[in-house]
Amino acid sequence: MEKTFSRQTYGQRIQNHSNPAAKMLLEIMERKKTNLAVSVDVTRSKDFIAIIDTVGPFVCLVKTHIDIIEDFDFSLIKQLQDLSDKHDFAIFEDRKFADIGNTVALQYSSGVHKIASWSHITNAHPVPGPSIISGLSSVGLPLGRGLLLLAEMSTKGALAVGTYTEEAVRMARAHRDFVVGFIAQRTMKGVGMQDNVTDNDDFLILTPGVGLDTKGDAMGQQYRTPRQVIVDSECDVIIVGRGIYGKDPSLVDEIRAQAKRYMDAGWEAYQERISAPVV
Amino acid sequence: MEKTFSRQTYGQRIQNHSNPAAKMLLEIMERKKTNLAVSVDVTRSKDFIAIIDTVGPFVCLVKTHIDIIEDFDFSLIKQLQDLSDKHDFAIFEDRKFADIGNTVALQYSSGVHKIASWSHITNAHPVPGPSIISGLSSVGLPLGRGLLLLAEMSTKGALAVGTYTEEAVRMARAHRDFVVGFIAQRTMKGVGMQDNVTDNDDFLILTPGVGLDTKGDAMGQQYRTPRQVIVDSECDVIIVGRGIYGKDPSLVDEIRAQAKRYMDAGWEAYQERISAPVV
Repeated sequence: MEKTFSRQTYGQRIQNHSNPAAKMLLEIMERKKTNLAVSVDVTRSKDFIAIIDTVGPFVCLVKTHIDIIEDFDFSLIKQLQDLSDKHDFAIFEDRKFADIGNTVALQYSSGVHKIASWSHITNAHPVPGPSIISGLSSVGLPLGRGLLLLAEMSTKGALAVGTYTEEAVRMARAHRDFVVGFIAQRTMKGVGMQDNVTDNDDFLILTPGVGLDTKGDAMGQQYRTPRQVIVDSECDVIIVGRGIYGKDPSLVDEIRAQAKRYMDAGWEAYQERISAPVV
Repeated sequence: MEKTFSRQTYGQRIQNHSNPAAKMLLEIMERKKTNLAVSVDVTRSKDFIAIIDTVGPFVCLVKTHIDIIEDFDFSLIKQLQDLSDKHDFAIFEDRKFADIGNTVALQYSSGVHKIASWSHITNAHPVPGPSIISGLSSVGLPLGRGLLLLAEMSTKGALAVGTYTEEAVRMARAHRDFVVGFIAQRTMKGVGMQDNVTDNDDFLILTPGVGLDTKGDAMGQQYRTPRQVIVDSECDVIIVGRGIYGKDPSLVDEIRAQAKRYMDAGWEAYQERISAPVV
């Protein structure tokens, strides 16, 4: 009989994973009762740290774009790690690696950002083929890191559809030690598998493009609600950005209120999912 | 009657382009008689500058991965720009942008690397859909920059095939002010067009995975010769990496000899292409 991972609690699903970063994330989700990730897309270190310290209590994961920070130096990483310890969240550098194996191995380990040294989870586009996984894995696996593949994108006209998505999932199935899940808009259960074969892969699905107040932006991003994402599409983590921290990082009370609002909406949707009667 | 851009000289093709970076590259190719680009994938500033100063006289373009340089600070960019002036080559940061519009606009303009401020040409994966072009164009077009889309990849099992490649070319055709060509393994003439419609888009095709001595590496990269790429597949620029600078940046004479060898092979192939009788 096929396991329905979406009916299991986050805590129960820890045992489905061997990867340390996947286990860590599920443990935090269970412990803090949150499936909210905040995407912190600001260009100043001061704002970056302020927002993370404010949203920290409400999130299981902080998603970063470290390469947009203008005044980056490596001491910022120590501050980020201290906040990760203080508030108990995992770190996900949303690098979207997309090059050949040799190059991504260097981009992951080297340069001024040294992503592999601090980011528990990172992600990659499957477009170069399996060599991107081997390249990143050669760096990340010895450090206990995990990888998400971008099986789909939430933007208009995205090309990660159909056989592209299926191939992405097949690549992930072949590298379960390092690939812990997907950036996607729905569960990948059964995707890329032959008929009548049991799908025993419990992938984590992290979903961007989540909003409670808006349908999209001017640059092609489209939004769905936490309930649509967690219940209807059986995703696991909702990723929210400006919807939580707006445009002024100093509005601590407002940011905290929005973070709590999204955390509650995400957790309520999850409770509905795991308690729903089996059809 | 359909124009056969591959029979035109690089100099003749300048008039087919409105984008300043595309014009600049074609002017350099015509002036220096080279269609060779060198990909400089090293992690130390000293090696980076040494290799570029050595290969500079032989190349039309230097391809960088600025994010792998361990000891980067912005003064390195000034040195790179000085070498670009001294040796007359264009700069191509091989960033492979692959995110939504808002994010790539920040990654292109901001952070410690400020790519848009110095890289004449950069590239992007079309996988997020057209919003990636609008996001990058909002930053790059006012600066006279140009964009290449990754229509194909040279790695085993790459997913940039079939309709993905066709959609990439359609996206490019709709943004000719900013998209100057492709990273690809062959001409994109007629790709993504309806039958019996004339293709008047003169795209530049830059082709990685070129080698005279080897067939591939352990991480899925595959190689073809300059003649296969320029004559058989009607590409315009050959991109060569370790095949030219090997493992020791101090071997100046050897690197120079290899650069000249590839430059000659690339130019000979180009001469054969433009002088071949029309079938």
